[in-house]
Amino acid sequence: MTVTIETIRAAAERLQGVAIETPLLSNRYLNETLNGSVFIKPECLQHIGAFKFRGAYNRLCQLSTVEKELGCVAFSSGNHAQGIALAAKLLGMKATIVMPSEAPQLKLEGTERLGATVRQYDRATESREEIADQIAAESGATLVPAFDDWDIMSGQGTVGLEIAKQLQQQGLETDAVLTPAGGGGLLAGTSTAIASLIPQAKIYGVEQENFNDHYLSRQAGKRVRIAGDTPTMCDALMATTPGEMTWSINSKTVEDFLVVSEEEIAKAIAFAFRYLKLVVEPGGAVALAALLSHKLEVSGKAVCIVLSGGNIDKETFSKCVEKYPD
Amino acid sequence: MTVTIETIRAAAERLQGVAIETPLLSNRYLNETLNGSVFIKPECLQHIGAFKFRGAYNRLCQLSTVEKELGCVAFSSGNHAQGIALAAKLLGMKATIVMPSEAPQLKLEGTERLGATVRQYDRATESREEIADQIAAESGATLVPAFDDWDIMSGQGTVGLEIAKQLQQQGLETDAVLTPAGGGGLLAGTSTAIASLIPQAKIYGVEQENFNDHYLSRQAGKRVRIAGDTPTMCDALMATTPGEMTWSINSKTVEDFLVVSEEEIAKAIAFAFRYLKLVVEPGGAVALAALLSHKLEVSGKAVCIVLSGGNIDKETFSKCVEKYPD
Repeated sequence: MTVTIETIRAAAERLQGVAIETPLLSNRYLNETLNGSVFIKPECLQHIGAFKFRGAYNRLCQLSTVEKELGCVAFSSGNHAQGIALAAKLLGMKATIVMPSEAPQLKLEGTERLGATVRQYDRATESREEIADQIAAESGATLVPAFDDWDIMSGQGTVGLEIAKQLQQQGLETDAVLTPAGGGGLLAGTSTAIASLIPQAKIYGVEQENFNDHYLSRQAGKRVRIAGDTPTMCDALMATTPGEMTWSINSKTVEDFLVVSEEEIAKAIAFAFRYLKLVVEPGGAVALAALLSHKLEVSGKAVCIVLSGGNIDKETFSKCVEKYPD
Repeated sequence: MTVTIETIRAAAERLQGVAIETPLLSNRYLNETLNGSVFIKPECLQHIGAFKFRGAYNRLCQLSTVEKELGCVAFSSGNHAQGIALAAKLLGMKATIVMPSEAPQLKLEGTERLGATVRQYDRATESREEIADQIAAESGATLVPAFDDWDIMSGQGTVGLEIAKQLQQQGLETDAVLTPAGGGGLLAGTSTAIASLIPQAKIYGVEQENFNDHYLSRQAGKRVRIAGDTPTMCDALMATTPGEMTWSINSKTVEDFLVVSEEEIAKAIAFAFRYLKLVVEPGGAVALAALLSHKLEVSGKAVCIVLSGGNIDKETFSKCVEKYPD
């Protein structure tokens, strides 16, 4: 198995009328600031405020009737949790989500509101994998990984499919596409779609600088694991090594990996508040941060960025917006 | 002259490729909360973060070459100012905007950044009309009103035209359309379009409760002027009487006027932050506030709301979001 434009198209059919086709936006001031054309794919406007629903639904809806009855289990800091919880709810399934107790309150509550059972764990002393495996073994529930799964990746790839379709509908072209890279699922799916449909566009993954496992893996020519013990606002990007399956794709499709600092991310969140009028979470703002901090020069070019989520606590949001007046 | 579906269609042609066709969004959690279907027209995503650009451009682009050379002048607390400033910039015109010195800093700066000359005045001691008239008399500049103007209203009416088109494209119907009512220009244009294209839909204007001049005018059967001396976050809705021209339309097209409190508006802003992932300014959030506070019962129905702008200072935004945890 792998991810191809065909598996992504099949996912898009399953998501038709279920997921939101998020719009492709642009902003005059952003274009003027960067002297280029930026197309914005705001997945913060997706169900549960993040792209994760796409993959979750594509995975769960293909389970057998018996598997659906036995339910599912997942571990996640938040957006995958909510994606699985909503997909399970829509499919009439039970879901148990193993979440770190320090996950954003917004994401914990959001997951419970969607009817999932949340099992909190202590990131320092417990293993989420072990807890989830035990739940799966005891209940027969299907364990659904956050990214290293072909159906999950194909679902996330519908973001790229929509970007290509929307650009074409508007008669637009793009020189590059940037997405955040956590475990690499969104990037793997999106880059597969873009490589197939807009082969001339270069694809970039963007990471928080202290969670630069993709960047380092590219340098090393193989998957590298980082310590990942630095505090960050980007709860969605805290994977410490690229997924095995996602890397099998991203190592081929991705032109380069860019890294941005915590401060550059905060500025991007403030920019999105002030000029884009969008609420973007830290992990969802890294591609915008990369452009605003000129990690990729876009002057005279057209680029597309994915704002992958908007689930940010009001305290973190206020801090970002307060800190940067402009 | 008046506003008709034809003048609105003509405005839409002038705005083609110039204004943003904002998407029509929906949100699962909002629908679930209200047990209905809500279609959201987010004009906060329009150029300058508010619908005002539509009318401003439709008005200015029709000026003669000589008039364009002499420039334009307007008075506004902010969104009309920025709409005129951008339209003038795109048309190569000079613009002078008379703005109250206590207008949101965001709007003052935004107007200047667009190249307009800002003339601040003291709301307590100076008359903005006199200042603007004097500038017009001295320079030959065209005075562009914020709402009581057929071309302005026709431009704002493209919001309604797009709503009707987008609903049709998605095979959707709506029972009602709600827009904010300040001077009544957005409402007059939108209600004209909706009355023509979706005649079965009821149209509602929404006001801040202390600036309820439309509501009182409807009760009285004629235009009523209010004191308008109560403080409010809704700088965009501080008109003290319906426009003469706008009222000639709204008195016929609008089913009813709804009023919402400052607290209900703050809650709507917080809701939009948390669930819609949109930044909405106080005056732009009143239609959402009306639904969330059950001023119009939408259970089992489909309604469309216009979020008319997103230009809110970070202090006001934080206050709204902080105050209401949910």
